[in-house]
Amino acid sequence: MDSSDLNEKIVGRGRMLFSAISGEKPSLFDTASWMGKVMDWSMQSKEFKTRLFRFVDVFPSLTTSALLTGHIREYFGEEQDMPAVLSAGAKMAGRFGSFGGAVLNKLISANIHEMAGQFIVGETIKEALKNITRMRDDGFAVVLDVLGEATLSAEESEAYLGTYLELLDALEQEQGHWPGLHPGGDDASLDWGHAPRINVAVKPSALFCQANPQDFEGSVEAILGQMRRICAKVVQVGGFLCIDMESYRLKGIILEVFRRLKQEYRDYPHIGVVLQSYLKETDQDLAELLAWARQHDTRISVRLVKGAYWDYEVVRARQMGWQIPVWTIKAESDAAYERQARSILENHDVCHFACASHNIRTISAVLETAAALGVPDSCYEFQMLYGMAEPVRRGILREAGRVRLYCPYGDMVPGMGYLVRRLLENTANESFLRLSFGEDAQIERLLEDPLVIAAQERAGRAAKAKQTNSGPAGLPIFANEPLADFTQPDQRSAFPRAIAQVRAQLGRIYPLHINNREVATDDLLSSINPACPSELLGQVCQAGIPQADQAIAAAKAAFAPWRNTPHRERAEYLLTAARVVRQRIFELSAWQVLEIGKQWDQAYADVAEAIDFLEYYAREMLRLGAPVRLGHIPGEINDYSHEPKGVALVIAPWNFPLAISMGMTAAAIVSGNPVVYKPSGLTPIIGHQLVEIFRDAGLPAGIFNYVPGQGALIGDYMVNHPDVALIAFTGSREVGLRIIEQAAKVHPGQPVVKKVVAEMGGKNAIIIDADADLDEAVPQVLSSTFGFQGQKCSACSRVIVLDAVYDRFIERLVKAARALRIGPAEDPAFSMGAVADAVARKKIQEYINIGRQEGVLLYESPIPQGEGYWVPLTIVGGITPQHRLAQEEIFGPVLAVMRVTDFEQAIIWANSTPYALTGGIFSRSPGHLERAQREFRVGNLYINRGVTGAMVGRQPFGGTRMSGAGTKAGGPDYLQHFMDPRVVTENTMRRGFAPLEEDDDWVE
Amino acid sequence: MDSSDLNEKIVGRGRMLFSAISGEKPSLFDTASWMGKVMDWSMQSKEFKTRLFRFVDVFPSLTTSALLTGHIREYFGEEQDMPAVLSAGAKMAGRFGSFGGAVLNKLISANIHEMAGQFIVGETIKEALKNITRMRDDGFAVVLDVLGEATLSAEESEAYLGTYLELLDALEQEQGHWPGLHPGGDDASLDWGHAPRINVAVKPSALFCQANPQDFEGSVEAILGQMRRICAKVVQVGGFLCIDMESYRLKGIILEVFRRLKQEYRDYPHIGVVLQSYLKETDQDLAELLAWARQHDTRISVRLVKGAYWDYEVVRARQMGWQIPVWTIKAESDAAYERQARSILENHDVCHFACASHNIRTISAVLETAAALGVPDSCYEFQMLYGMAEPVRRGILREAGRVRLYCPYGDMVPGMGYLVRRLLENTANESFLRLSFGEDAQIERLLEDPLVIAAQERAGRAAKAKQTNSGPAGLPIFANEPLADFTQPDQRSAFPRAIAQVRAQLGRIYPLHINNREVATDDLLSSINPACPSELLGQVCQAGIPQADQAIAAAKAAFAPWRNTPHRERAEYLLTAARVVRQRIFELSAWQVLEIGKQWDQAYADVAEAIDFLEYYAREMLRLGAPVRLGHIPGEINDYSHEPKGVALVIAPWNFPLAISMGMTAAAIVSGNPVVYKPSGLTPIIGHQLVEIFRDAGLPAGIFNYVPGQGALIGDYMVNHPDVALIAFTGSREVGLRIIEQAAKVHPGQPVVKKVVAEMGGKNAIIIDADADLDEAVPQVLSSTFGFQGQKCSACSRVIVLDAVYDRFIERLVKAARALRIGPAEDPAFSMGAVADAVARKKIQEYINIGRQEGVLLYESPIPQGEGYWVPLTIVGGITPQHRLAQEEIFGPVLAVMRVTDFEQAIIWANSTPYALTGGIFSRSPGHLERAQREFRVGNLYINRGVTGAMVGRQPFGGTRMSGAGTKAGGPDYLQHFMDPRVVTENTMRRGFAPLEEDDDWVE
Repeated sequence: MDSSDLNEKIVGRGRMLFSAISGEKPSLFDTASWMGKVMDWSMQSKEFKTRLFRFVDVFPSLTTSALLTGHIREYFGEEQDMPAVLSAGAKMAGRFGSFGGAVLNKLISANIHEMAGQFIVGETIKEALKNITRMRDDGFAVVLDVLGEATLSAEESEAYLGTYLELLDALEQEQGHWPGLHPGGDDASLDWGHAPRINVAVKPSALFCQANPQDFEGSVEAILGQMRRICAKVVQVGGFLCIDMESYRLKGIILEVFRRLKQEYRDYPHIGVVLQSYLKETDQDLAELLAWARQHDTRISVRLVKGAYWDYEVVRARQMGWQIPVWTIKAESDAAYERQARSILENHDVCHFACASHNIRTISAVLETAAALGVPDSCYEFQMLYGMAEPVRRGILREAGRVRLYCPYGDMVPGMGYLVRRLLENTANESFLRLSFGEDAQIERLLEDPLVIAAQERAGRAAKAKQTNSGPAGLPIFANEPLADFTQPDQRSAFPRAIAQVRAQLGRIYPLHINNREVATDDLLSSINPACPSELLGQVCQAGIPQADQAIAAAKAAFAPWRNTPHRERAEYLLTAARVVRQRIFELSAWQVLEIGKQWDQAYADVAEAIDFLEYYAREMLRLGAPVRLGHIPGEINDYSHEPKGVALVIAPWNFPLAISMGMTAAAIVSGNPVVYKPSGLTPIIGHQLVEIFRDAGLPAGIFNYVPGQGALIGDYMVNHPDVALIAFTGSREVGLRIIEQAAKVHPGQPVVKKVVAEMGGKNAIIIDADADLDEAVPQVLSSTFGFQGQKCSACSRVIVLDAVYDRFIERLVKAARALRIGPAEDPAFSMGAVADAVARKKIQEYINIGRQEGVLLYESPIPQGEGYWVPLTIVGGITPQHRLAQEEIFGPVLAVMRVTDFEQAIIWANSTPYALTGGIFSRSPGHLERAQREFRVGNLYINRGVTGAMVGRQPFGGTRMSGAGTKAGGPDYLQHFMDPRVVTENTMRRGFAPLEEDDDWVE
Repeated sequence: MDSSDLNEKIVGRGRMLFSAISGEKPSLFDTASWMGKVMDWSMQSKEFKTRLFRFVDVFPSLTTSALLTGHIREYFGEEQDMPAVLSAGAKMAGRFGSFGGAVLNKLISANIHEMAGQFIVGETIKEALKNITRMRDDGFAVVLDVLGEATLSAEESEAYLGTYLELLDALEQEQGHWPGLHPGGDDASLDWGHAPRINVAVKPSALFCQANPQDFEGSVEAILGQMRRICAKVVQVGGFLCIDMESYRLKGIILEVFRRLKQEYRDYPHIGVVLQSYLKETDQDLAELLAWARQHDTRISVRLVKGAYWDYEVVRARQMGWQIPVWTIKAESDAAYERQARSILENHDVCHFACASHNIRTISAVLETAAALGVPDSCYEFQMLYGMAEPVRRGILREAGRVRLYCPYGDMVPGMGYLVRRLLENTANESFLRLSFGEDAQIERLLEDPLVIAAQERAGRAAKAKQTNSGPAGLPIFANEPLADFTQPDQRSAFPRAIAQVRAQLGRIYPLHINNREVATDDLLSSINPACPSELLGQVCQAGIPQADQAIAAAKAAFAPWRNTPHRERAEYLLTAARVVRQRIFELSAWQVLEIGKQWDQAYADVAEAIDFLEYYAREMLRLGAPVRLGHIPGEINDYSHEPKGVALVIAPWNFPLAISMGMTAAAIVSGNPVVYKPSGLTPIIGHQLVEIFRDAGLPAGIFNYVPGQGALIGDYMVNHPDVALIAFTGSREVGLRIIEQAAKVHPGQPVVKKVVAEMGGKNAIIIDADADLDEAVPQVLSSTFGFQGQKCSACSRVIVLDAVYDRFIERLVKAARALRIGPAEDPAFSMGAVADAVARKKIQEYINIGRQEGVLLYESPIPQGEGYWVPLTIVGGITPQHRLAQEEIFGPVLAVMRVTDFEQAIIWANSTPYALTGGIFSRSPGHLERAQREFRVGNLYINRGVTGAMVGRQPFGGTRMSGAGTKAGGPDYLQHFMDPRVVTENTMRRGFAPLEEDDDWVE
């Protein structure tokens, strides 16, 4: 049959199905019900939809009447203002007394519970079993899914697994009592003669909280170990096990888990996996899977879905700078589904097919394709979600006989995420169900071949894309360098290779670099691997006063020509340097793993950020470089521009050894200030990479000078030097304040008042509000606190927890912390590595002791044996503002936990340190978020996310109070700190004649 | 005759005239000639036109071959690149050798001389007389005008007057030999039987270099005194005297001079004045003049012109913020001309009419109107410019018989301005001659009634005007407060009245103002009038440490609520304050005249600038206050905003006592920082005006606190106070550096690193290049140096003069300086007043003594007797960079003159001080101007204008090196120094759902 014949049949089948269910409405779209009304309203108002869904999301955590009342008001306004659909009934009741609020609470609670009940088969086994029986009575098979996949610790994973085992036990006991479906087949104990009555779906991420593509093998093995236990039980009860697919991030891991498990159960046919048609890689994955099954002579099962995480996948890819893994045109997913369904059906001898869709076009396509290919009924079935699309499921049941409902089971609290996802699906603009039932259906359009629709949309978008914005001087708009994407096997394998490559080069001696010449000294500093201090990485020449003088003189001599170099040309050097860094990104990252102990992803992020600074500041200079005309009075031209200050001294820290060095340096250089650069003594080899990068970028002599050396010796000397005009510093408060004070003194012969750009420490807090989403808050607090051993000025070091949620939060936090393993950064199995050096280790250990005295040790992790600078991951409770642990920057993996009674106190405590760098809040109260925006006074405030990982151009970084002098690296004001504004005013009138300018404003 | 009949006749007459001259071309449009070609090219290329006219302007000053060659290259490019019309001939010659440049010079020089000769009747009396005879032979009468009206000193005025007297002598001797015009009339010695053969036009401004509407009566009397001498001579030779009209600025003065003179010569009919139809006031002026003549029973003469300074009048009005005095639609002037011509003709019994126009429509209208009114021939004549519109003049001569040519006479150097004006007129887009002869003439359009054309244009503009831009938050776009316009009699009379009003309030005691409460202390400081120290203006309570503490505490307490006040509301207070100041502008100005000795215009400018700061910063806050979203990644919102720093200490100077105080204060307040304000001890009463202004604006308590007191006592104390977050200072380098150093020290309990916004001194230079236009340079150097007694940080205190122009410049400068008179600022006759106090006087006197030792005293003015703080206006020559007079800020009326051999040295010397605030250059070399833009490193560089008077929003003010810390008051970066940037990042994704934002960038 050719494809157009088939399409005609599909459309015909679709028309028939539509007509068979005409007049029926799924309960979700039934505007006679409260839920239908609310859905209807959501589809009309984008803003209401957001509020409603967010309210539903937070709802389970509103454990007191006060919380509930407050949130209802914050989300929907005062009772008299809220949409009638929400308050109806309550208003009426309220008339008779003052208990309107209580009535409203009750009403809304009941309605949301009812709504959840629509989608969840039961909160208890008993309830679930009752509903299963009812569904089977109606002719539907079921597959059960346990809610609560967001596990954060081994304990939570174990509990999740335990629920499955219990559930399977219960089902085993019950299944004999269930009504048969199509009894009289080959085996009456099987549904439809071939399918196990017991069928469960498992989300693999829930089985291992640390699953992570960076540690691919470790993640596969950990999940597999747990999955085996469920599988054994499923096989024991003769059931069906489907491994669910979740976000793209874990796809490779899940497919690998499936293959390994299936290989162990080669002869058991009832093990399946899910593929998502919206992923661009699914065609390839499916082909490989089918080939694999054939090769291993085993029969697999695939449930094909469209995919439910589209927003998430797009947002995450856009945030990380990755290729978007999903089709961005809805019809492309639909077309992919039909294509992939056909592949499976063509391979029905090795692959059972579960068609999971509510889309009548899709279902019709599967039915017609299967018919055309002569696929036996036993080789495919239909699946739909419990509580949705009732008319469709009934229609398909009548048509095909084999419909299985996907039934979530378990607590409503973790189930809310599921509920919101379902509501979203149903109210999305492009939702097939919404189009079919929520609005005036245009059946012909709904049944159209998705390939045709996709082609039309692609054409429309291509036309639009031509008008894409471009950045200054015709460059593409700034976009962050993509972060490492360990879902890509080549990126995973690049790291060990690059580390080996770096190891092959160890032991070099690095000279100074002054005026584009190598300058060697006899004073050598060794650089070592903090995870293995006996490993010598190289030796770096140290500068003394003569070399410092030489470097400043070189920079001073280079100033005038560099200042006069057109800003466009200066920007080009940065863009070239960015290309150089990009080419060496894995090698440069590997150096960070070894020289300062960064985990793979963190090391890569540091190098990517260096690229970002180069690309961003180049564009910023192009933006700022062109003079702006002020005023438009004819006869005068006022050109406002910025010019460099002079010799810039850049004093860099070790914790972002390339990114921060490059950021300060690139800003100084591109704005016209030659640089004398002093790297940290802990990362001088990474510091030397700037020499190589700028050399390869062709930077002229004297513009970048590399002068490693002791701060107390040459640092102070250079800060005080009269020829230094500008000091860019990132480091500790103590050193920063000393620099600020020294630089303010004008020395004889000093031409300018020195400018200091100083980024100093932090004592950053995250507030956990009573209604925080702990599934998000716990892992984000952990990564913000313990990533790179807490050695970031942005790192969280205090968590301020509201009483109402304290116990729940702390329990989950500590358990989750236990899952973090400590070991050398080069092994991706470890979340935390060694700290910078022995001095840091000693200081951190002292603070842990102080914490022990000031508060209560909630957790102290084991540390590896051996020579590295190991300190335990430490959580200390019972801390209040007067404690040193609440005030002093530790710069290590120590978290102070502070318990507060209310939000007011949380804000006060959050602000009660000398610092104001980053801060975070996890809350779902619009009022509290607004208040935090206003009153939580830090340079970078993060709402409902971690507090580290600021991206250039998106989260310009820097704080106030003792954290810094109000500059924001990677932001639109930054370069101005490296320049002075200047106005050139020309009187263009001569002899009464003023030439007309384009933008003159001549007459009123 | 009704007007449409008349119009028909006018059009008919015009057609006839056009047809009578058809085929003829004025020499200027004859493209067979070099001049015609060049004019043609100018009309095609706007850029070439500008370059050519500027080159013609500078040409006379190119006194060496090197200068000439250099300028030709800079203006027109290398020979091979320049328009063929310029280089033709030279190219040919160049082929035969390497002397192309010399040949080109010769060719271009000859051509420009020829072009000038076209318009100038002679450079010598002999030459002029020859040409006059030739013209009379052709039937034209003449009026002679002596070039060189730009007189800068009494000597130059005297020389100008002398030329007239000589010329009149010569004419008297010659006139008998001249051919008669229409002999056989009543009196053969008169032309046409009634008109004197000798006829001169005089530019009154040339007779008194200090003419100035601020000193209206003084200007009238001075001009009149000189004009009488010319008039006596004219009457003696039986000639005609016409008083020319120049720019609008002097119009009132000139009309008054005419009236007074005419009254003295009531019976002599041959004295006239010029009116310009393009001035909106001319209808009124003419009516008054005619009534005046009738009332005084005297016969006057009016030459009516369209007006030749349109660009200048518009530019000046726009720059000063005044109503534009001229019609902005060309046809409105044409219509006004016809209307005014009719008025004169209707009054021909008291007013003779000289119709000065080349416009055939205009001339036809005059001819037909005169005919219709039956005006005798002897009552009107036609005038045209020598060298222009030859066909028209011949045509009108045939038609009307009475045509007089306006003949400039004298040196080509001052004549270039005249030449450029004529070239402009002829090449303007709307020029009647250009339209008639330079392009395809559309005769009907040219002859159309200008009223009709004007109505059409007005309608077109009104449609456009509706799309006017508006500023932030719907406010009108920022525009500077208009400066005082002393052409307006009400503004002239307001000053003495306001000063009297202030005098009536003297002697008050002013308390401190803390937390919106008056706080009195026993320590009183007297404020006096520096021109009359015995005049006590008032007494001001002085704060001690307790009051300083109280004020800081009040500001600190006010910080949180003020910070949380919406920025829009904060901005509104400033806008209200601006209204308050505007209402009191004359009174506040009068206080400055008395308390610190500012001249009227300077005092008014200071108050206007205070208004500007309020209006500008309010808008800036509205612009900066709204958070900007950074990045457009879906699922995250990054709001970039700015928040205030805390308590701001404002330490203000006395020299711009309201403007700078208000600028710093308004910036701090609007950006959210409560202010503790310490005014200068020399202007504490003006400082107290801020209390009144903010009180009237309704500012809440604690936001503005007025704390006058001693710097050494409370100044240092407050700078060091841990609760001060921000110090805004304007004043001396010494104090500024002390503040910077003190503020950099972090004291116990201090929450933030202090920010210092410091504007300090200057040692500003103006470079006088070899080709500078001295007519502009001399008065601008004088006003920049000696305005407000040189007590401005922007003031010029060094003039760096190139050898080539040194003698000419210095001679004119010193002579011009002699014309400046010193006396109390309240009398507008004086250009310079008393300095601030006895300390300033002593310091300046010391520097004058130093100057005497280091260099040569070129001029030291007399000073008034009596008790004021008088110092002489002083010019010291022979200064080189190592002298103290070249390095140290004097802050008084002392100018150091530095002689340099070339431009290179000029730039080096200009940069060779510790300061870098303002700088100026007078040059007409594009290459030198470009180099100065790049290498003359000051915060505010001014090209071909004075270096003082920076306007808010147009010339943001501030310098670098020891002049300041790189801030720019009144500029787009200023408010940022009062705030810290802040980013609030919200993860908007919950449960995988991210609400769509308008500006999200979802998919590629």
